[in-house]
Amino acid sequence: MHEIAVFSGSAHPDLAADICAHLGVPLRPVRVERFANDCIEVQLQANCRERDVFLIQPLVPPTQENLVELLLMLDAARGASAARTTVVLPHYAYARSDKKDMPRVSIGGRLVADLLLTAGANRVLTMTLHSPQVHGFFSVPVDHLHALRELAAHFRGTDLSNAVVVSPDLGNAKPAAAFARLLGVGVAAGAKQRFADDKVSISSIIGDVAGKDVIVLDDEIARGSTVVELIQRLHELGVGSIRVACTHGLFADGAIKRIGDMPGVKEIVCTDTVPIAPQKRTPKLTVLSIAPAMAEAIRRIHNGESVSALFDA
Amino acid sequence: MHEIAVFSGSAHPDLAADICAHLGVPLRPVRVERFANDCIEVQLQANCRERDVFLIQPLVPPTQENLVELLLMLDAARGASAARTTVVLPHYAYARSDKKDMPRVSIGGRLVADLLLTAGANRVLTMTLHSPQVHGFFSVPVDHLHALRELAAHFRGTDLSNAVVVSPDLGNAKPAAAFARLLGVGVAAGAKQRFADDKVSISSIIGDVAGKDVIVLDDEIARGSTVVELIQRLHELGVGSIRVACTHGLFADGAIKRIGDMPGVKEIVCTDTVPIAPQKRTPKLTVLSIAPAMAEAIRRIHNGESVSALFDA
Amino acid sequence: MHEIAVFSGSAHPDLAADICAHLGVPLRPVRVERFANDCIEVQLQANCRERDVFLIQPLVPPTQENLVELLLMLDAARGASAARTTVVLPHYAYARSDKKDMPRVSIGGRLVADLLLTAGANRVLTMTLHSPQVHGFFSVPVDHLHALRELAAHFRGTDLSNAVVVSPDLGNAKPAAAFARLLGVGVAAGAKQRFADDKVSISSIIGDVAGKDVIVLDDEIARGSTVVELIQRLHELGVGSIRVACTHGLFADGAIKRIGDMPGVKEIVCTDTVPIAPQKRTPKLTVLSIAPAMAEAIRRIHNGESVSALFDA
Amino acid sequence: MHEIAVFSGSAHPDLAADICAHLGVPLRPVRVERFANDCIEVQLQANCRERDVFLIQPLVPPTQENLVELLLMLDAARGASAARTTVVLPHYAYARSDKKDMPRVSIGGRLVADLLLTAGANRVLTMTLHSPQVHGFFSVPVDHLHALRELAAHFRGTDLSNAVVVSPDLGNAKPAAAFARLLGVGVAAGAKQRFADDKVSISSIIGDVAGKDVIVLDDEIARGSTVVELIQRLHELGVGSIRVACTHGLFADGAIKRIGDMPGVKEIVCTDTVPIAPQKRTPKLTVLSIAPAMAEAIRRIHNGESVSALFDA
Amino acid sequence: MHEIAVFSGSAHPDLAADICAHLGVPLRPVRVERFANDCIEVQLQANCRERDVFLIQPLVPPTQENLVELLLMLDAARGASAARTTVVLPHYAYARSDKKDMPRVSIGGRLVADLLLTAGANRVLTMTLHSPQVHGFFSVPVDHLHALRELAAHFRGTDLSNAVVVSPDLGNAKPAAAFARLLGVGVAAGAKQRFADDKVSISSIIGDVAGKDVIVLDDEIARGSTVVELIQRLHELGVGSIRVACTHGLFADGAIKRIGDMPGVKEIVCTDTVPIAPQKRTPKLTVLSIAPAMAEAIRRIHNGESVSALFDA
Amino acid sequence: MHEIAVFSGSAHPDLAADICAHLGVPLRPVRVERFANDCIEVQLQANCRERDVFLIQPLVPPTQENLVELLLMLDAARGASAARTTVVLPHYAYARSDKKDMPRVSIGGRLVADLLLTAGANRVLTMTLHSPQVHGFFSVPVDHLHALRELAAHFRGTDLSNAVVVSPDLGNAKPAAAFARLLGVGVAAGAKQRFADDKVSISSIIGDVAGKDVIVLDDEIARGSTVVELIQRLHELGVGSIRVACTHGLFADGAIKRIGDMPGVKEIVCTDTVPIAPQKRTPKLTVLSIAPAMAEAIRRIHNGESVSALFDA
Repeated sequence: MHEIAVFSGSAHPDLAADICAHLGVPLRPVRVERFANDCIEVQLQANCRERDVFLIQPLVPPTQENLVELLLMLDAARGASAARTTVVLPHYAYARSDKKDMPRVSIGGRLVADLLLTAGANRVLTMTLHSPQVHGFFSVPVDHLHALRELAAHFRGTDLSNAVVVSPDLGNAKPAAAFARLLGVGVAAGAKQRFADDKVSISSIIGDVAGKDVIVLDDEIARGSTVVELIQRLHELGVGSIRVACTHGLFADGAIKRIGDMPGVKEIVCTDTVPIAPQKRTPKLTVLSIAPAMAEAIRRIHNGESVSALFDA
Repeated sequence: MHEIAVFSGSAHPDLAADICAHLGVPLRPVRVERFANDCIEVQLQANCRERDVFLIQPLVPPTQENLVELLLMLDAARGASAARTTVVLPHYAYARSDKKDMPRVSIGGRLVADLLLTAGANRVLTMTLHSPQVHGFFSVPVDHLHALRELAAHFRGTDLSNAVVVSPDLGNAKPAAAFARLLGVGVAAGAKQRFADDKVSISSIIGDVAGKDVIVLDDEIARGSTVVELIQRLHELGVGSIRVACTHGLFADGAIKRIGDMPGVKEIVCTDTVPIAPQKRTPKLTVLSIAPAMAEAIRRIHNGESVSALFDA
Repeated sequence: MHEIAVFSGSAHPDLAADICAHLGVPLRPVRVERFANDCIEVQLQANCRERDVFLIQPLVPPTQENLVELLLMLDAARGASAARTTVVLPHYAYARSDKKDMPRVSIGGRLVADLLLTAGANRVLTMTLHSPQVHGFFSVPVDHLHALRELAAHFRGTDLSNAVVVSPDLGNAKPAAAFARLLGVGVAAGAKQRFADDKVSISSIIGDVAGKDVIVLDDEIARGSTVVELIQRLHELGVGSIRVACTHGLFADGAIKRIGDMPGVKEIVCTDTVPIAPQKRTPKLTVLSIAPAMAEAIRRIHNGESVSALFDA
Repeated sequence: MHEIAVFSGSAHPDLAADICAHLGVPLRPVRVERFANDCIEVQLQANCRERDVFLIQPLVPPTQENLVELLLMLDAARGASAARTTVVLPHYAYARSDKKDMPRVSIGGRLVADLLLTAGANRVLTMTLHSPQVHGFFSVPVDHLHALRELAAHFRGTDLSNAVVVSPDLGNAKPAAAFARLLGVGVAAGAKQRFADDKVSISSIIGDVAGKDVIVLDDEIARGSTVVELIQRLHELGVGSIRVACTHGLFADGAIKRIGDMPGVKEIVCTDTVPIAPQKRTPKLTVLSIAPAMAEAIRRIHNGESVSALFDA
Repeated sequence: MHEIAVFSGSAHPDLAADICAHLGVPLRPVRVERFANDCIEVQLQANCRERDVFLIQPLVPPTQENLVELLLMLDAARGASAARTTVVLPHYAYARSDKKDMPRVSIGGRLVADLLLTAGANRVLTMTLHSPQVHGFFSVPVDHLHALRELAAHFRGTDLSNAVVVSPDLGNAKPAAAFARLLGVGVAAGAKQRFADDKVSISSIIGDVAGKDVIVLDDEIARGSTVVELIQRLHELGVGSIRVACTHGLFADGAIKRIGDMPGVKEIVCTDTVPIAPQKRTPKLTVLSIAPAMAEAIRRIHNGESVSALFDA
Repeated sequence: MHEIAVFSGSAHPDLAADICAHLGVPLRPVRVERFANDCIEVQLQANCRERDVFLIQPLVPPTQENLVELLLMLDAARGASAARTTVVLPHYAYARSDKKDMPRVSIGGRLVADLLLTAGANRVLTMTLHSPQVHGFFSVPVDHLHALRELAAHFRGTDLSNAVVVSPDLGNAKPAAAFARLLGVGVAAGAKQRFADDKVSISSIIGDVAGKDVIVLDDEIARGSTVVELIQRLHELGVGSIRVACTHGLFADGAIKRIGDMPGVKEIVCTDTVPIAPQKRTPKLTVLSIAPAMAEAIRRIHNGESVSALFDA
């Protein structure tokens, strides 16, 4: 096999360093220069020729900066004769733009997939896409990981004797059910009814939650409005403690504090797919590392071993 | 503008004839020859040169035959110098293959979209895709109609004083809510819980249905298992009459009879996107024509008028 | 080199098993599921990642089913990160649609070549294309085998002392001449005159056939009309015994019986590129295996050895 | 419709001028500059913007010069915002490279088709391709004319009471048969047997020619070896006068003189798809103009009228 | 012709409004929404169907935001069935990244050209590219304007009796010479010697400048270091007044003040291809409008008239 | 790694043989056949299957012949299943057509880059492109060598105590400066002023040359007009001896004699990227071999080692 070469853009260098530490390979340096006209130039500062190149860059804020930087890194790797270039997208923010629900609107999830290919991506490694159909937006192979094992390992360290997993969105409850099985507990779901186009309300909880210790599981938390509303419903039903878990912790507009301050909320758990500024962190926030999982996936991709096998029991 | 030329494949010539009647243009003949080795050859039997060509072919059983025939028609239109070729897919069956939920599985919805483009499709006109993300599988413009106005017009002819619209799938309840608004009635939804990977059960109904006359609305009914289960739940809650409505009436394995024979079911309503064999028809089945809507969309596409405006109140 | 992985679609699993036996590699299982709407989903049930994947699927009846299944298998292999995917087409039925002899007609041979590429084919291995120009319809490498050595080995077991090879079509007599050289016998050809567009008649035989034991050689026999007519001409010239040989034995509409029942016909020989239903088989039919040749070609493609060398004396 | 703009490269300006005269449009000037390093630069010297551009350039010797010049003209037309660019190839020399009959050999007919598309060709107008399959090498629309009507008009001016059309190649006798029908005379064909790979010999003539006035019809005559051999065979059978006709008169290596000097040859007839140097011309040579037919085809392409209709009786 | 529809992104709405005023067509509204994860969604808020769409967006700071917004606008226009989409790039900042002068560096000028095409650009209208070769980075038609006529009209209003045009870069002095011809004055150039890779110094001025009123002309001024250095050289040679002119006034890091404060500098003139914040403006700065020229070019592109004719004397 | 296979076209077989000698691999034979219609057919006469193929062909006169031959070689290599094909272009003549300086003119540098890719080039190895932007015309990796080390090694054998390097074109003086640094001497440049569109004149020399031994360095010399004019200027300034050096010695129209006959010119030095006919050679001409450098670059490309490292001090 070709030698591996891993580079990181500016989006999340800590995660990249962590992944490389688990892989046991050096993180190669990248020079990013910004000109007076605000254009970026990227130089990959290690030999890429006939290497198996991995470019780690979650699409997180500032999203456009990180996206264009990634596209330039891809172009540089192709021009530098990389044998194969894999884009590692721990978080693919544009996956939320996955449909055309108004006339003359862009479908960013498909467009960005096409841009990555144009710039030279040969394959993609990503985690917990907002909808599974986004996989089909790419015409190159995609390895699509989830973080349920990492989250489950964490919660096994808590008292699960009276626990139940609750999905805020019944229509997307499959991961919550899988997560509950991993923990050996029950599952419930909020019925996120969109009975009007402009009004989302959680009118009821399907499943038994009264008196239970609740683990709320979502794919991503941005402003956190849905979770806040769900917790209000849960309180009306008289639940015990509440822990909130997600893969992608974007936590915009003070979401950590807003959720953490609600009564009964003991912990907010997320992974490190999205960098979290130190000033955002509170004692209630736990950030789990997905670096070992990403490193293992990269190792298997590099060695041609099955990645789906990674998720077997 | 270029002159219009409309052709139909073998899948649903009656619908094509109906659309052409509403358009006021002749349906052009197509010769389909099958050789001893089972290969198909297609000849479009009217001048396509610099015409605005529309090829009408829902992907319905025999799906593979109809798909390959459509691809050959596209190739023939391109080779015959069509100015533009629009594929009219009243039903796009492969839209259900929209994600990779197991390793090494095909994503037919994306592949078939790519095949249509390779064969020469310049744009697509379709109706009620199984998931809205499938729109993003196409890299050519897609006009995506729905049949709610046709269905609403029909139900306005029934007694709606005590009616409620029920979606079998809460996660996909947006069309049902829109439909209820069109009818001026309430909405409810079955909570189609998938708490285990291999087990789907509708454990509860969100919203008030007791004593109501129910209109069940789904996008497509194939074997009808979900609808049957929903009706059982509705009966447990003591509903009044039940009417079942959908856009795509595939009705496999005796679904019409199975649903129609359930107690309380007064009517099954679908549109004619899928041809229904005469022997399948029962007195309880009502088939609405979407030909006027398709014809109007084709007219607007041909004339460069807004199709989204077609759906305004 | 990457590890090899061989899969077979539904078209001809026996041939695939045979090829794998000669290769000494396991035939990997494929799951083909058919939904209520007649759509197919394919799952390759063995790791393809970085493998050298071969998908064996002759395009034989039901041709459209087998074609779409093959396209889905290609899509699955690409999505599963195959290092390279070779389509093995022992019979490429659409090769007969190789020209546009009427206006607005599809050229299926070119279109299907494009579809295979769109779905992910990186190269093609095929046998005895109907016309050599079809090779140029593919923009990926094609290895184009013939079955003359297999056929020659068989006929060397017969009395060749008085034999002559006869091609039904003088315009395509090159393979017959090569075959005759392999057997060390003479060659003749029917003059398949198409003096009218709609009328084919074999008006004469070029070369000396009177009193000879004739071996008729054609690329494929479908309904067999040409061969039947040729045999009638041969009888008028007073030939001895007649044996009929071809690569692709499609034998539609009772062709085996029709040819076998003609006076003087002692044997019909074909290869197993096309599956022959047991009920079609008669004592006069001999089916030769091309599995060893296909296996050897696959082995050489996999190892990067010359395939053309395979055909040297 | 967009305005028409016709340009000619260096290959055959006389034909282009003739076509324009029949079309009634001016032939637009092209500047071709050759630099000290032998590179060519092309400037189209009339506005192409949103025009329907036609570039007339048969691929005739010096073939490579003419090909690259044509590619540069296509590039210039695209860069100059042509609405559509049609390549007019009265003779497509590379059509003869249509198969891979040896290992590691180029298939020039397909490659040049791809190059034309890369350079910006939107469609092709050509005449009498060497094999009909070459049509399928192009993925843009091709209008494929023949010159039988022009040739027939000429021969109707001769005494046809005892005439017969003879094709040198039985395998390609369809055009000869069509030609004979146009003239109302019989048809025969030489059996061009290739019983050895390296040896072509015409062993017999199929059809009745003794005592007849023969019209030999071929698609193209380059060195003329086949025609010379055929005429020898015809003499052995005791034919009367001989006239030789073809579409593409390349006439390399003194072919006109060699054929014209044979006993009984009264006339050699070709069209002007290939320019014929004045010094090559002899009294026995008649050159027919295909400019009216090309002009009519261009007019129909430009106006979106059926070109196939052009060939109806 | 199709109807015109002009949209502007966020980069420079004032210029777009100005262009539309000159064109006499309304500027259509665009909705740009930013989500909590910093992703952008664009909606074109007027019918694009079969329209001739122009999207005005100079690539100016914040360059990445403006670029991605433009790509999303292109995607939206394509999805909304625009007949043709022209990207109007009054300033193409990434044109400066036009070569690979270090190993493993991106070539942003080519990459961004490819991205625009992937997103749906059918043609490009731009002004004063940094190097003329960048034109060749696009494979769609490019109309490349310059602003010399606008600049000349302005300077004709000053006393030119003793004037000379000076280019800072002799290697790029062609526009300065053309500009001097327009003004009817002489021309000179700074010899911008790069005798070391890392050191640029203007060692001399070619041409007669002593005692003259100098008009410095450059394509773009970003930080202004080159111009400052040139002015120092000019002073050493005893010039009279100094006026500085450029097309693209980026004016980063206080460049306006730095240049304007140099002795003898009477005026800095630029065009409005780049928006200039009010707080940057000083009495010495004159901003000329290129809106009339851009509007005229758009009008000609839309009407299929020659744009190159726009620049004739 | 795959095995290497090196082929040469007709353009410069001596150079190819030399490169192979330095690489220690055999030069594989190529059969080029020319038909009566002037079409070329190419056969690569050694196994390419899964080989790392290099095709050596400078684009030198007859440029169109050599270009089309190269395109056919690429097609043959792709069809023969080459693992990777690198085009080795020691001289890329079409690089001079790098901009559109007149309306409706071809940009040959970009077009030919696209043609090479269409024909199957996976990467390019070239030397001293006319402008560095041409690198960006290719969308495959390009290794761009220069010949400064070879030229420097030669001149180190001359008396450099009083030497200065002079670039004829100040705008392109960077290579001359690098060359001077390699030799440890000073640098100067001619100011090639293009103050009128149609008039180039070298009005002055920047830098100190009086009394110096001059080494003129240019990228290529075709007709040599610029160099002749520069030498005239140098004489006016009273230089000592003059030596002329370039990478690409095209030497059209008697350039060697014209330059060599000028007073003070002691030597003309070029490399062998372009073949020089024996009759052109004079005692003043020295031709340096770039075969070792090309061979080393090929070795590194083949082995996946850094090529940029090749140029480090």
